[in-house]
Amino acid sequence: MLTRGNPLGHAPGDVMAFDVGGTDIKGTLVSASGDLLDVVRVPTPRDGARTAEAVLDRVHELGKELSGRSPGLQAKAAGLVVPGIVDARAGVGVFSANLGWTNFPFRAACEERLGLPVAFGHDVTSAGVAEFELGAGRGFDDVVVIIIGTGIAGTVIAGGLPVTAGGYAGEFGHSLVPDPSGTGTDILESVGSAAAIARRYTRISGNAVDGAKGVLARMQAGDIVAGQVWAEAIDALSFTISACITVLGTEAVVVGGGLSEAGDELLVPLRRRVGERLTFQRRPQILQARLGQDAGLIGAALAARSLLAAGSGHA
Amino acid sequence: MLTRGNPLGHAPGDVMAFDVGGTDIKGTLVSASGDLLDVVRVPTPRDGARTAEAVLDRVHELGKELSGRSPGLQAKAAGLVVPGIVDARAGVGVFSANLGWTNFPFRAACEERLGLPVAFGHDVTSAGVAEFELGAGRGFDDVVVIIIGTGIAGTVIAGGLPVTAGGYAGEFGHSLVPDPSGTGTDILESVGSAAAIARRYTRISGNAVDGAKGVLARMQAGDIVAGQVWAEAIDALSFTISACITVLGTEAVVVGGGLSEAGDELLVPLRRRVGERLTFQRRPQILQARLGQDAGLIGAALAARSLLAAGSGHA
Repeated sequence: MLTRGNPLGHAPGDVMAFDVGGTDIKGTLVSASGDLLDVVRVPTPRDGARTAEAVLDRVHELGKELSGRSPGLQAKAAGLVVPGIVDARAGVGVFSANLGWTNFPFRAACEERLGLPVAFGHDVTSAGVAEFELGAGRGFDDVVVIIIGTGIAGTVIAGGLPVTAGGYAGEFGHSLVPDPSGTGTDILESVGSAAAIARRYTRISGNAVDGAKGVLARMQAGDIVAGQVWAEAIDALSFTISACITVLGTEAVVVGGGLSEAGDELLVPLRRRVGERLTFQRRPQILQARLGQDAGLIGAALAARSLLAAGSGHA
Repeated sequence: MLTRGNPLGHAPGDVMAFDVGGTDIKGTLVSASGDLLDVVRVPTPRDGARTAEAVLDRVHELGKELSGRSPGLQAKAAGLVVPGIVDARAGVGVFSANLGWTNFPFRAACEERLGLPVAFGHDVTSAGVAEFELGAGRGFDDVVVIIIGTGIAGTVIAGGLPVTAGGYAGEFGHSLVPDPSGTGTDILESVGSAAAIARRYTRISGNAVDGAKGVLARMQAGDIVAGQVWAEAIDALSFTISACITVLGTEAVVVGGGLSEAGDELLVPLRRRVGERLTFQRRPQILQARLGQDAGLIGAALAARSLLAAGSGHA
């Protein structure tokens, strides 16, 4: 994770960054010299149809708090990322099932509140771009970043540019995979996500478990059902990853999100299974994400810095 | 198909274009005013390790023949596209299993023979870009062009740019799909290609058949096995297409190659089956390719014209 002493490089000014999630909003300041200050979290407000407005009110307050904590910094731009379907070009949150907005003009409304130019984008795309620019994907041109947690989503970087498709790209979790029972198809998220691993273990074994981490611990202790569920998750993930490689000629697959904290227990069998599925295709590196849970926030800061650089002629 | 009277628009000069296939080499001239002249074919020479050199000798002769036929035209650049793995940026044919070359410097060698600047690329990418620029994909930003013939390959256009990944992208035919027997996985090409449709029909029915066209005719005449094989091909194609849509947020899927000549017999059930596989994803248009078998050649001409425009400051 990037922290103090691990700077992002220089920019023409200080920036703020905000990452709106389903549970909390994270905010930080990044200095012109590239220091990422402490990350502050506040709960994400829920206010029905007014949720987007309430979120921006909270972002505004958080911005004032961040500025108050660091009186030496003066943000000249901000980055804001949100979940759901996002039209980054138009500055609009098209749809969020979880947070309940439809076609909300985040960029304009946030610029008005903060009095700053705002770079607006999608949380997962932002995390993917951050991993590409500064994390495990650095140095490659064609990268797939796949974030595996409760759900599964990701970012395709093709020829050095993120594929956004008006906000519709990257829904890896909804790719079809063969059902582990061999009787049809399922979506990847229902087999390969951290949530699915726990749910499927409990369904098959009848035992409650503390998340995918608990399933992993049981597998390591010799639990056969845990081993089966874990292997089926890897099988499903390798199916979708190999499909991406085949179509996109991917050089590096960066695996992030909660499940990636399993490290080699995930990556070693995943590399093997992807390798088994490929024939003449490119053999990509399969790497653990490096920026941790703040990747989306770091991406938002990068976008704000790009805005600043472009606007001030330092691009 | 673009022909005389259906011009490509103006360019700073006349260009030559060549499309090297496994069976023949096609060549044509395109005038500065955008007229595509007659397409001339010569057999692709096979000369073991010297095949790439022999191909370029034939391209050189073909160029002279084209110039002789149209003394009013004076090509100022050429476009050359070849199959296999192609590094367009480096100007190198990395590998062709069929034509037997490895790391052959096509661009430099062709420029030397023709005495012209040469735009070098991959045949399927070139066809995809042509369909995107001038054919069924025109007007969209995020397009998948899938060419279904003996094999299956294609081009992803993301945000208006082709995804090449150093020549490794677009191998749709090698994507995994559920095996029609429900017992495992197979590659798309083994179920959904024109060649596979004929082969599988013969294997299951014991009857010889005249290609996928013959299977279609039998299906229309009420042959149950033909109907089953055709439906399984569409099922497999819809699986890979829906995976692309999910990850890439595709707006339009353009279907070309020999199998696309089946028209609505292919497209209507394919649209329905893709629709059944999608939930909240973008619903792309699924369209028949418009440029026919000369799409790759047209793409080569477009690339040559771009070179000319860039070089002469008319870009």
